Order: sequence, then C-alpha cells, then structure tokens
Amino acid sequence: MSGSAFESLEKTLEKHIPDEELKEVKRILFGKETKKLLLPACAVEIALERDFELQGYMFEASTEQLRTPRPVRVGLIQNRIVLPTDAPVLDQITALHKRIGEMVDVAAMCGVNIVCFQEAWTMPFAFCTREKEPWTEFAESAEEGYTTRFCQELAKKYNMVVISPILEREEVHNILWNTAVVVSNSGSVLGKTRKNHIPRVGDFNESTYYMEGNTGHKVFQTQFGKIAVNICYGRHHPLNWFMYSMNGAEIIFNPSATVGGLSEPMWSIEARNAAIANHCFTCGINRVGTEHFNNEFTSGDGKKAHQDFGYFYGSSYVAAPDGSRSPGLSRTRDGLLVTEMDLNLTRQISDKWSFKMTGRYEEYAEELTRATKQDFKPNIIKE
Amino acid sequence: MSGSAFESLEKTLEKHIPDEELKEVKRILFGKETKKLLLPACAVEIALERDFELQGYMFEASTEQLRTPRPVRVGLIQNRIVLPTDAPVLDQITALHKRIGEMVDVAAMCGVNIVCFQEAWTMPFAFCTREKEPWTEFAESAEEGYTTRFCQELAKKYNMVVISPILEREEVHNILWNTAVVVSNSGSVLGKTRKNHIPRVGDFNESTYYMEGNTGHKVFQTQFGKIAVNICYGRHHPLNWFMYSMNGAEIIFNPSATVGGLSEPMWSIEARNAAIANHCFTCGINRVGTEHFNNEFTSGDGKKAHQDFGYFYGSSYVAAPDGSRSPGLSRTRDGLLVTEMDLNLTRQISDKWSFKMTGRYEEYAEELTRATKQDFKPNIIKE
Repeated sequence: MSGSAFESLEKTLEKHIPDEELKEVKRILFGKETKKLLLPACAVEIALERDFELQGYMFEASTEQLRTPRPVRVGLIQNRIVLPTDAPVLDQITALHKRIGEMVDVAAMCGVNIVCFQEAWTMPFAFCTREKEPWTEFAESAEEGYTTRFCQELAKKYNMVVISPILEREEVHNILWNTAVVVSNSGSVLGKTRKNHIPRVGDFNESTYYMEGNTGHKVFQTQFGKIAVNICYGRHHPLNWFMYSMNGAEIIFNPSATVGGLSEPMWSIEARNAAIANHCFTCGINRVGTEHFNNEFTSGDGKKAHQDFGYFYGSSYVAAPDGSRSPGLSRTRDGLLVTEMDLNLTRQISDKWSFKMTGRYEEYAEELTRATKQDFKPNIIKE
Repeated sequence: MSGSAFESLEKTLEKHIPDEELKEVKRILFGKETKKLLLPACAVEIALERDFELQGYMFEASTEQLRTPRPVRVGLIQNRIVLPTDAPVLDQITALHKRIGEMVDVAAMCGVNIVCFQEAWTMPFAFCTREKEPWTEFAESAEEGYTTRFCQELAKKYNMVVISPILEREEVHNILWNTAVVVSNSGSVLGKTRKNHIPRVGDFNESTYYMEGNTGHKVFQTQFGKIAVNICYGRHHPLNWFMYSMNGAEIIFNPSATVGGLSEPMWSIEARNAAIANHCFTCGINRVGTEHFNNEFTSGDGKKAHQDFGYFYGSSYVAAPDGSRSPGLSRTRDGLLVTEMDLNLTRQISDKWSFKMTGRYEEYAEELTRATKQDFKPNIIKE
C-alpha cells in the first residue's frame, strides 16, 4: 500500500483493533473521545452526491454558573484542485470557486458559523516550480479581488465568517504576500493577516514568491469568538502560535499545503501541541491530491527532474485545549469537517492547567532579548 | 481493560494490524522507523532476571564529509518505588539506590554514556499529600548528599554521565528545590539545574513544597554532547524547551512524574513537538506504578478522600529532531530504554528545516516584552 493510497489512520485502527483495547488506544492517541455531531440528513446526502467526505464532532465544556455555553460551529474544507494546472488561470479560479461554493452550501446546512479554506485555495500549490508565470497571475487584491468578492457573497448569504487564504497582490507597491482574508458574517472584510514564517525546505520554494508577513499577530473579534490564522509553515514555530494566543485567540486556524514525504509524522503533533500549550482550539487544514505541472523542476536532492510535488495528505483536524482532538478527514478525498466547540472550554482548561499563569514571561522576554544580541553568550557549563 | 493494566500502545498496534497497513500506521504515528539496537545477550539476560524491560533503538544521521559521526548512547530509567511509603525514610532511599544501581549495571553493559533517572527518583511522589513530614526529610544536598555521592560512584565506575533529579535541600538558606544534579563521567558534580515551572493542577501540590527554579536555562557540556534538563511540568511550556535549545542543548531530558487520568494524551505530543521545533533530541521519562499513602488526602474535585495519586503510566521515550520517535517503554513495568543517537542529526535537520533561521526572534523578543507590560493592549481587530 503506497502512502498516497492509505485512506485513514483512524479507520484502520477501528477496522483491526478489538473494542476493549481500541478504547485505550484511542484514549492515549486522541484524548477524551469527541462525540459525533448529528448532521442533517440533507447535508449528508448532498455531500455524498457532490463526492466529498462530511464528518461532524463536538467538543463540550462544563456547565458554569455565571456564563452560558458559547458553542460555535467551525467548518474546515480540504480539497484537490479541479482543473489541470495548465488550464487558463481564470478557469482554474472559477472552477475552484464553484467547488468550494458547493461545499460551503453544505457547511451552511450544518450550521457552520466560521469556515476556513486551505492555504492558497484558489490555485495549485505551484511554488515548487520557481516559475513566476503564470502563477503570479493568481495573486489578487485582499480587499477587492474576485475571490474576496466571492467570499463576501457567501458570508452574507449564510451569515458565516469566511477565512480565505490566498496569494495576495498588494497593488500599491506591487508586492505579493501569502495572506488570509477574514470576511465577517456581515459580508465586510474584517481584515487580513499574512504568513509570518516562510519555508526554505524541500520543494517549498515560497521564498521566491513572497516575504515574511508584516501584519504581526492580529486576532479577529468575530460575532462567534476571537480567531487568528497561523498560515502553514508558521505551525512549526511555537512562538507564532503563542503570540496569537497572547493576543487573545480562542481558535487558531492553520491553513496549510504540505506533502506526505516531508511532514506527515509532524502534522498531528504541532497544531495539537499548540492547542494544549496555549489553552485554545487549533484547526489544521491540508489540501489533498497530487498536482502535475507541465514543466519539469528539480528538488535539490540529487534526484531526477520531475513534474509533481508529491501527494498532499489531507488529514485536516481540530485539536482542543484539553489535549483531545477530532479524528482527521481522509488523506485522499475532498472533505468538510464540522466541529462544534464550546469556547468556554478554553478558560476552563486555563483555570485547570494555568500555563499562562505559570509561564514566567517577563523572564523569557529578557532571556530572548539577550539571546538575539550579537554578543550573546550561551549559558554553557563546562567541567 | 482498565487504564492501569493496558501495557503498551505499540504492542497493541503490532498485535492486531496487518503488516502492510501497520507500516503506514507507524509511519504516520511515529515517523521514520527507528532501527532496533542490538544489545549484549548478558544485558538482556540480567534485565530479565532483575525483572525490568530492556529496549534499544538507534537514530541515525547522514554521513558528512567534514565531521565524523557523533554517536551517543543514552539510557532512560523508569521505575516504581521499592518499599511502601511508610517504611523508614533512609530504608526507602537505600532500596531505591539498590534498584537503580542494578539497572545502571545493565545500562553500562549496553554502553550507555548518559543515564537519566525519573523526577524525584529517591522518593515516592508524595506532594499530593500536602504533608511536610516525613517527605521533606527526603531532601538532600545537591553537592554532598547521599544520593549525589551514590551517583558519583556510578559515574566513575562506568564512565557515565548521570542525571539525578532529586528533592534538593539548599542548606545555607534551608530552601527546598526540585533539582536535577548533573554528574560528569569523571565523577565530579558538573552542576545542577532547577525545575522552572511548578504545577498547580490536580494533585500536583508541589507549590506547597518548592518554588520556581532560579537556575535559568543552563546547558551542560559533557564529553558526549551538550545536554539540558527540563523537569516535568516544564514540558508544557514551549518557551522552556526553546530557551534550553537557544543555549545550545542537543539533548533535553524531561524527567517526570505524571498520572494517567491527567496527562496521558499529552505525553506523546509535548516532548516530541519540542524535538521537532528545536532541532534536538528530547527524552521523556515517567515513573510507573501506584503509590499508596497512609493518610487520606482530597483532590479539590468534590470526590471522597483517598490514599493514592492514580497510576503513573511510564511510557518513557526518545523523540528525534526529524519528527521520528522511539517506541515507548511499557506503561506498567520498570524499564531501561537505551537509544543510540548520532548528534550530527541535530544540525542536519536544522539545515534542512531552518526553524532557527526563520524564527524572527528579534520581533518575538519585542512582542513578548510588550505583552508582559501592565499597559499591554492585545492586537484585536473589530468590525
């Protein structure tokens, strides 16, 4: 069985391990069991018809005396590209709008309040090629591009916050960025937030196309909760998650595009660790499928030139502050993961574990400041 | 099957899942397979005789042109207490010395260069009780206590660095600390490093006994590599791991004492995330067994008073910078985990993934400094 054909870790465990032991295996691997969310039959049916996976789970919190529950439904969408990478640019964008629109319809039927798409969702993840054309033509204005207008319509129609990670062209200075646009459920653009850390690893030649983001660690106060977006490679940087949390994020989205050969064993670790360490929910989203390009490119690994990046392994999931996580979407299919999370859990777990209170941040601020100076001497003890 | 009887996640997966799928399951869960280390037959035999588990694994690195490999063998020891908690203090300490001595003999046969014991290894983890007597009698001088002398003998005898986490009594000011003593393979005390973050969660009433450590983030330059010790609850704090790494640690040990009901789903996440994020090896060690105390105590959870803390779930393991990890030791038995790691892997993975280079630490130093000020205003965007 090749890595790209293996559908799901969770399903494999369930198929083979006897119930009694499975309970312990799942507890150790995934934490407290997340309940299944009952989704409307019409949604299930339409997802089947439109050929994408639909899963629903629920993270509950304790009842409090002074606060009512704060349930919010979050939708994560993972998908493959629709047209070949050599189709006309506008056709590719339009086809992706149509596909995502179909999936958002179902999210709306499931009562989703906030939906997030995958990184650079309007295009193939073409940065492996190092070619500028035609890929830079996919870049759009965050405020007024086709895609933002499309998302504003969805947001208004469904009273849904839409997080739309795109390749942004800032037109004043003609600069490209890797950006998530946050559209409020009112339909207005609440703001944008840019990818803070840009990879230089494997075929992730993104530093050819855009620089480190300059928007800091913004948190967006939506009607449904305080959210932030840590784009892709930023998930490897614990300080990045941490600073969104220090600004008050209750849910941090991590729209990504990452491939099986490189990062898969890290995928289930990093966003989940961030949820635990920061007492918040985190949402990892990764595309699926293998994207083929007309022109060959090399990978700086001594191997032959080739025309694809490897397979994107999907496996989108939600991690909770209590150490639990939802099952992942499939590794191979388009999918919509709906999770209902009671945001009261974030403060409850913070009160229980108290990482912010025991964090000694003043001291780390000093130590980190010293460590970044040119004359920094590491604290090394020798015999 | 109760949580305390379930022996091992890894063994359960291997028992039930067919080979072809098992390969994918293990790749996704544990990363690149760690080779088994061939251990001497006499060591295997004596471990069997002395009734503890012995496992060996190897983390390899690529061959380089300018550096020779830097293999180091690390031993992690997990164990239950030997005598009941109401036995005389000195008898309990002596019995633990004897047990650990037996296990270190086997570590030496396996060529271990650096051995690390579990947190507060000379005593029951009695901090749940909130009683001062007799538990504070277990506190010893880090420089001249029985236990340090015992470790110095082992170190000299076996040319082995010994990391000995104890309850320390600083005699000048009569202050208790949770401290790891690092004894060089020469037999001299290289130094000590104290627990930086003290829990206030569940029955971990340690803040009744000792305060946050004042030794910063020391790294010890040993003959076998640069090592640091992040004690127990410090593993929940990504900044703690990070700062040891910023001071140059290649291996960070995490001697712990933690129980199944509280932290088990987080156990395999946190140290492993730290290995990934900091391009270093991390070693989690947790005791095993259930410890009973004569006097009842309550847990602040509305439940009845009781006489134990729950079961410590062992599962000690090593995580590598490439996202892989060793299998865990058993959840229920004493054990010695021997891993050979080529420390060249740390720089190789850093060169590949470049998290330090892409970390933007100057900006985080500023942001964190601002975030700790009394007049800090979080960066929240509203409609």
